[in-house]
Amino acid sequence: MSEYSAPLRDMQFVLNELGYLDQVQALPGCEDLGADLIDAILGEAGKFAEGVLSPLNQVGDREGARWHDGEVSTAKGWQAAYGQFVEGGWNALSCHPEFGGQGLPRLVSALVEEMWNGANVSFGLCPMLTRGAIEAIELCGSPYLKETYLPKMISGEWTGTMNLTEPQAGSDLAAVRSRVEPQGDGTYRLFGQKIFITYGEHDLTDNIVHLVLARLPGAPEGVKGISLFVVPKFLVNADGSLGARNDVRCASLEHKLGIHGSPTAVLAFGDNDGAQGWLVGEENRGLEYMFIMMNAARFSVGIEGIGLSERAYQRALAYARERIQGTEAGAQSRDKVAIIQHPDVRRMLLSMKSRTEAMRALACEVAVAMDCAERHPDLQQRQESQAFVDLMIPVIKGCGTENAVDIASLGVQVHGGMGFIEETGAAQHLRDARITPIYEGTTGIQAADLVGRKIARDGGQAIGLVSKRMRYTMERLVWADDPVLQDIASALASAVVALNAAVEFIVANFKGQTPRVLAGAVPFLELFGTVAGGWQLARSALAAHERLQAGTTEQDFYRGKLLTARFYAEHLLPRAEGLSRIVIQGGDAVLEMEDRLF
Amino acid sequence: MSEYSAPLRDMQFVLNELGYLDQVQALPGCEDLGADLIDAILGEAGKFAEGVLSPLNQVGDREGARWHDGEVSTAKGWQAAYGQFVEGGWNALSCHPEFGGQGLPRLVSALVEEMWNGANVSFGLCPMLTRGAIEAIELCGSPYLKETYLPKMISGEWTGTMNLTEPQAGSDLAAVRSRVEPQGDGTYRLFGQKIFITYGEHDLTDNIVHLVLARLPGAPEGVKGISLFVVPKFLVNADGSLGARNDVRCASLEHKLGIHGSPTAVLAFGDNDGAQGWLVGEENRGLEYMFIMMNAARFSVGIEGIGLSERAYQRALAYARERIQGTEAGAQSRDKVAIIQHPDVRRMLLSMKSRTEAMRALACEVAVAMDCAERHPDLQQRQESQAFVDLMIPVIKGCGTENAVDIASLGVQVHGGMGFIEETGAAQHLRDARITPIYEGTTGIQAADLVGRKIARDGGQAIGLVSKRMRYTMERLVWADDPVLQDIASALASAVVALNAAVEFIVANFKGQTPRVLAGAVPFLELFGTVAGGWQLARSALAAHERLQAGTTEQDFYRGKLLTARFYAEHLLPRAEGLSRIVIQGGDAVLEMEDRLF
Repeated sequence: MSEYSAPLRDMQFVLNELGYLDQVQALPGCEDLGADLIDAILGEAGKFAEGVLSPLNQVGDREGARWHDGEVSTAKGWQAAYGQFVEGGWNALSCHPEFGGQGLPRLVSALVEEMWNGANVSFGLCPMLTRGAIEAIELCGSPYLKETYLPKMISGEWTGTMNLTEPQAGSDLAAVRSRVEPQGDGTYRLFGQKIFITYGEHDLTDNIVHLVLARLPGAPEGVKGISLFVVPKFLVNADGSLGARNDVRCASLEHKLGIHGSPTAVLAFGDNDGAQGWLVGEENRGLEYMFIMMNAARFSVGIEGIGLSERAYQRALAYARERIQGTEAGAQSRDKVAIIQHPDVRRMLLSMKSRTEAMRALACEVAVAMDCAERHPDLQQRQESQAFVDLMIPVIKGCGTENAVDIASLGVQVHGGMGFIEETGAAQHLRDARITPIYEGTTGIQAADLVGRKIARDGGQAIGLVSKRMRYTMERLVWADDPVLQDIASALASAVVALNAAVEFIVANFKGQTPRVLAGAVPFLELFGTVAGGWQLARSALAAHERLQAGTTEQDFYRGKLLTARFYAEHLLPRAEGLSRIVIQGGDAVLEMEDRLF
Repeated sequence: MSEYSAPLRDMQFVLNELGYLDQVQALPGCEDLGADLIDAILGEAGKFAEGVLSPLNQVGDREGARWHDGEVSTAKGWQAAYGQFVEGGWNALSCHPEFGGQGLPRLVSALVEEMWNGANVSFGLCPMLTRGAIEAIELCGSPYLKETYLPKMISGEWTGTMNLTEPQAGSDLAAVRSRVEPQGDGTYRLFGQKIFITYGEHDLTDNIVHLVLARLPGAPEGVKGISLFVVPKFLVNADGSLGARNDVRCASLEHKLGIHGSPTAVLAFGDNDGAQGWLVGEENRGLEYMFIMMNAARFSVGIEGIGLSERAYQRALAYARERIQGTEAGAQSRDKVAIIQHPDVRRMLLSMKSRTEAMRALACEVAVAMDCAERHPDLQQRQESQAFVDLMIPVIKGCGTENAVDIASLGVQVHGGMGFIEETGAAQHLRDARITPIYEGTTGIQAADLVGRKIARDGGQAIGLVSKRMRYTMERLVWADDPVLQDIASALASAVVALNAAVEFIVANFKGQTPRVLAGAVPFLELFGTVAGGWQLARSALAAHERLQAGTTEQDFYRGKLLTARFYAEHLLPRAEGLSRIVIQGGDAVLEMEDRLF
């Protein structure tokens, strides 16, 4: 079984040679983030991911998290690893400094996060959910909540959860039924059942801080009557020590296809006298707050997809180099060769590699925009960056995760029969990846968000700017006087035309024919993700070309980057035109098929 | 959990309304196969699949087959089910009547087989492997082998296995090392280890007949030195009773991603004094015999894919109709609706349904050709049919199984979070399906077989005839004066042009630039499968249109068929052009990326 190897060189390439680190360094408060410091952080994170988290990945899968009488034990070695994680200060990486965070830009923490997920996605979920809870409290918690919870959550001494889903309320949160009763002292008693709560119960920390959606008495129906509450597992005394056990209990854990190391809990609130809770922000604005967190979480799930893709690729590559089988196609020699020599195996590996790198670069583009949206001195720049972030989050989430499933499945395929044997480990990546296009909003929901809120609503303005940036990249390709770059330019040009046609269709028809446009939303998401990935790899190709021209000593590395971009241009981008046609013409074929005709 | 429902109406549609039954009835020996008799057989098979096999599907998954001291127990209820299977005469359905088979045409047995696999693929594997072993003995076994083994294997009292793979010899059988020593009395002693042996050991029958590839002393190296042997688990006395235990032992079972109910054995031959074996056919022609069986098995694995796709679709459809979540897109009403009302869910269901039906019709087209190749009085017809069968087997295998993985994955997606929970059952279909593009030759191997042996070798003649038949279908569509049919005609026309361009490229370049063509072999397989499926659904649309014009009482059924074909034309066929471009232009991008650049 091959282990995870942190893709530091690839990350440095994206940071330094695609210009993302330069952009971040220009932001106030980031001036001192030299490439050396970033390298050191990534290097240490890589060591932790490789040395501590990765060896626990298969253990977590095999042992899983176990429920006994309301308590949950994580797999062997997980407690110690979490302890080291907290001690290393990793949990605080991107949190605000006010309560102990290190305030690093999202660009850096996104790459670190990719490593946690590549090494051990079940582990990575714990800090990811904690960060969501931290953001909710930072954003709109009272001073009491901030002082009581943030320092320990930011350090990682306590973890956080997000409690949205109920059996009848999955994608549709308007159906949430959990309710609270005000106690007159500013606190509430909360009653209800929540399902699919990631790390809803575990033995990694002394306390767990649940962020819970519930309804106040007399609240309006639907999404406008949902409020957000903090409900700790143990109440916290005035001196910060732990008090009584709160009335929240883990009723069971789910038996899942993958991410076995991560406990997915059913939580029962208020089976006795009600779970004590504190309102976060204002009444009935819970969904709004949750959505801010959810956007951050969606981006993180996209990163999960990238981490899983990278790991599946690494494993498949190692196997393809080591497995000797068959002879070289079209050659006279009967010598047995490693299967990486077979054209179809190489095609699969290139498909895995190129899509992973495309998504990583795109995620960094978005992470930098997050940093700009937060820190740029110019208001218009901040707003434009935020619009770009809003546009791209469903793409990172939707395509990063759909790619991950497909890449992990290709990883199984590269292994042949061995891929189907659990001990090999390739199958675990597929099982783990399969949840990512579902949680934090399915691909269908990401796609609907993309075409409706992110494209139709602003009349295609934000995506128009992206398309313009793609054309700048094409201009550079065209003038580079290199046949490979010109091939890429030509493939990208056709793909962008196809993308623009689909955007025009969406902008023109979303309002009048919403269902018809929605019927093509997922193909559009795939189209946009494919083209945006091609744009990023075209930028990689330009950077690699420059280095090669300048006579770099890393010939193989940069030539690999150039050819990876070319593969993407010739194997992924040609799909754009068909997808565009599906978006534009395929709606009626979906809508006319009424339920009873199935 | 929804159970399997045999898709009898859909099968009758393919049999009767696409004209396949007519074609078979015109063959010698099939004149008496009336539609009523076929309906009765399919109806009984459907009852057995629904009532006996389907309820054991999840049991098999959970309990799995268990190894203890060389013995293997199947899951609870499996022994009784297998007993009923044999008693019902199901095992003998398509075997030759000489030794007790019922000699039904492949068209009928293919549909019955789809039901076994839809109901319980782990169970279905047992008779499938037995049939492979039967065919090998029928084809080239000595009269002794035929008389000793065939009656009990055809009845199903004994099962059969195919022993090809060894740790160093997976896809590449040239590397087989198992060896035999002749005993001078016409028998052999066999020594070696075989892996991935489906139903290599079990408790369903008294005896198991292993067909084993091994080398004779002094045999040539590589594939030309492999012979085929019968090695029974128990030796058979002259009176047909069971004698001594042979020297073959199940060393262990694999721990797999799916098909847990089907034991996948490591078999050790000759750990003591050698396993007694009998040569099948001539020395050193084992691979050739194995390939004849393997072609039959490849078709059967394609059918597995179709069965699994149908089941995954049924489960997703049932869930989509029952799960209430969200409101109707673009409507004023805030009433909650079943998720089948959401355009993206409907799109997913249509994608699952249309691809399953396309593959079923295509498999029937191939099954009829198998029947013609065997039974048609005219030699040229037999040869043309055989050429069509040879051409299409890698397509049925490759696309039927790749579709199955994707369809089962969509099935999980339709379920949202519930799809990831094992109790729901959707995840099992994905786990089970994942092996199908691997065993009996990976998709890459199917694709290489298709472009090399099946297209380049005859200069594109066989596929040219298929393309011609597609044009006849288009002609009918064009003259039907119906806007839906004309939309389908137009989509099919563009797709056929794209297909033909790719075929021309392959024929022109395979010999001179084999690796470059092989780099696009899998995209070509996808292209051909997609277009061939579209052709079959265009034929369905024509048949449905005729019934609708004639004022059928089954308006919904035929309208469903028409709209399913239209969906395929507008959502699957537009992908053809991009795939064709990848085949034609994408080779160099794969080949230039040398191993060290990854």
